[in-house]
Amino acid sequence: MSGSEFESLEKILEKHIPDEELKEVKRILFGKETKKLVLPACAVEAALEWDFELQGYMFEASMEQLRTPRTVRVGLIQNRIVLPTDAPVLDQITALHKRIGEMVDVAAMCGVNIVCFQEAWTMPFAFCTREKEPWTEFAESAEEGYTTRFCQELAKKYNMVVISPILEREEVHNVLWNTAVVVSNSGSVLGKTRKNHIPRVGDFNESTYYMEGNTGHKVFQTQFGKIAVNICYGRHHPLNWFMYSMNGAEIIFNPSATVGGLSEPMWSIEARNAAIANHCFTCGINRVGTEHFNNEFTSGDGKKAHQDFGYFYGSSYVAAPDGSRSPGLSRTRDGLLVTEMDLNLTRQISDKWSFKMTGRYGEYAEELTRATKQDFKPNIIKE
Amino acid sequence: MSGSEFESLEKILEKHIPDEELKEVKRILFGKETKKLVLPACAVEAALEWDFELQGYMFEASMEQLRTPRTVRVGLIQNRIVLPTDAPVLDQITALHKRIGEMVDVAAMCGVNIVCFQEAWTMPFAFCTREKEPWTEFAESAEEGYTTRFCQELAKKYNMVVISPILEREEVHNVLWNTAVVVSNSGSVLGKTRKNHIPRVGDFNESTYYMEGNTGHKVFQTQFGKIAVNICYGRHHPLNWFMYSMNGAEIIFNPSATVGGLSEPMWSIEARNAAIANHCFTCGINRVGTEHFNNEFTSGDGKKAHQDFGYFYGSSYVAAPDGSRSPGLSRTRDGLLVTEMDLNLTRQISDKWSFKMTGRYGEYAEELTRATKQDFKPNIIKE
Repeated sequence: MSGSEFESLEKILEKHIPDEELKEVKRILFGKETKKLVLPACAVEAALEWDFELQGYMFEASMEQLRTPRTVRVGLIQNRIVLPTDAPVLDQITALHKRIGEMVDVAAMCGVNIVCFQEAWTMPFAFCTREKEPWTEFAESAEEGYTTRFCQELAKKYNMVVISPILEREEVHNVLWNTAVVVSNSGSVLGKTRKNHIPRVGDFNESTYYMEGNTGHKVFQTQFGKIAVNICYGRHHPLNWFMYSMNGAEIIFNPSATVGGLSEPMWSIEARNAAIANHCFTCGINRVGTEHFNNEFTSGDGKKAHQDFGYFYGSSYVAAPDGSRSPGLSRTRDGLLVTEMDLNLTRQISDKWSFKMTGRYGEYAEELTRATKQDFKPNIIKE
Repeated sequence: MSGSEFESLEKILEKHIPDEELKEVKRILFGKETKKLVLPACAVEAALEWDFELQGYMFEASMEQLRTPRTVRVGLIQNRIVLPTDAPVLDQITALHKRIGEMVDVAAMCGVNIVCFQEAWTMPFAFCTREKEPWTEFAESAEEGYTTRFCQELAKKYNMVVISPILEREEVHNVLWNTAVVVSNSGSVLGKTRKNHIPRVGDFNESTYYMEGNTGHKVFQTQFGKIAVNICYGRHHPLNWFMYSMNGAEIIFNPSATVGGLSEPMWSIEARNAAIANHCFTCGINRVGTEHFNNEFTSGDGKKAHQDFGYFYGSSYVAAPDGSRSPGLSRTRDGLLVTEMDLNLTRQISDKWSFKMTGRYGEYAEELTRATKQDFKPNIIKE
């Protein structure tokens, strides 16, 4: 059983471990049990017909006296590309629009209020090739591009906030960015936020195409809650999650594209740690499948040139501020994960654990400022 | 099977899951396999005789052309208290000295260079009671206390760095602190470092006894590597780990005392995330057993007064910068975890993933400074 054939960790545990022990294993690994969400039969049938996984879970909060529950349904979509990477650019984009359209239809049947797609969802993750053509042709205007218009239609049709991570072409300066467009449920573009940290690791040669984002740590106030988007490699940077939280984010999305050989053991750790440390919900999304490229490329690992860089392992999941998490979607199949969360949990857990209150941020601001100076002397004690 | 009877997650997985699938489960959960370390027969026998678990693992690094391996053996000790909590204070301390002395003897047989004990290791974790007497009598001088002298003897005898987390009484101002004393392998006190973040959660009423530490983020340059100590609740604060790393720590110890009902699903996440995010090794240590107190206390949870606050779940482990981790020690037994680590791995992983290079710390220093001001306006985008 090689890595790309293994459907999901949770399924293997459930297959082999007897119930009583499984309960403890799950508690230690995943925290308080997340209840299954009953989804409408029409959605289950449609997912079956369109051949993608559909899962639903709920994160509950305690009842309060002065606030009603603030329940929101979030949808995470993971998928493989539809056409081969050498198909015409517009055909590839259109085929992905069609596929995601189907999945959003099902999200709507499930009552989803906010949906988020994977990183650079309109294209193959071609940055491994270091070739500019034809990949830069996938870049679109965040405000007026073909894909944003498509998302606006979905948003209006379903009264749904749509987070659409694309390769952005900023027309004025002709600069590319890795950007998430946030479309309000009204259909208007609420804004955009750019990837803050750009990898230079393995096949992720993304700084060849775009630089560190200049949009800071914006939080979008939607009708359904305050949300932020930490794109892909930013999940390795605790300060990035933290600063979204400092600006008030209750849900932080992490649309990603990452492969099994590189990051899989870290995948279940980082977004979940961020949910715990920042008293918020985090949502990790990763694509699935293996993408083949016509022109060979090398990976700077002393090995021969090749045409793919491994399999994207899916495993999209939601982590809660109380340390619990949903099961992951499949490692291999397209999927829609629907989670219902009561956002009151964020303040309840903050009141319980009080990390913001005990954070001593003023002192860290001073220490960090000193640490970034040229003449910084680390605080080292010698004998 | 209730929580306190479940010996370890790893053992349950190994008992039930067939080999081929187990390999993938472990890769996803724990990262690259940590090899077992062959420990001397005399140590294995002594651990058997003295009735504690002994485990050994190694974290290897690639060979380099210009640096030789920087191999260090680290020992983590977890234990239950020896005498009842109402035994005379000095008897309790002496009994713990004897127990830990045995375990350090075995650590020495295993070639350990740096040993770290659990938080407040000379006493029961009595802060749940909110009573001052007799618990404050366990406080000692960090420089000249009975326990520090005991550690100095061990350090000299075995050429071992000893990290001794105690309840400290600072004599000059008569102030208590939660402090780790670092004793050099020469036997001299290299310095001390105080707990930076103090919990106000559940039964952890520690701020009744001591306040936030005033020693900053010191890193101790020992003969065996640069080390730091992030005590207990500080593990929930990513900035705390980060600032030790900014000062150059290669190994960060996290001596703790925490119970099953409160934190267990977070235990395997936080120290490990810190190892990944900061390109360093982290070492989590938690005590075992349930401690009973003569005087009842309440827990602020609407429940009746009681005499214990649950079981400490042990599960001490080491996490590496490459996302891998050692298995945990038992959830129920005293134990010594010996890990051999090549510190060259820290720079190798930093060169690979480059989180420090891509960290944009100057910008975070500015943002954090703004965020701590009274007139801070969060960056919220509204429709």
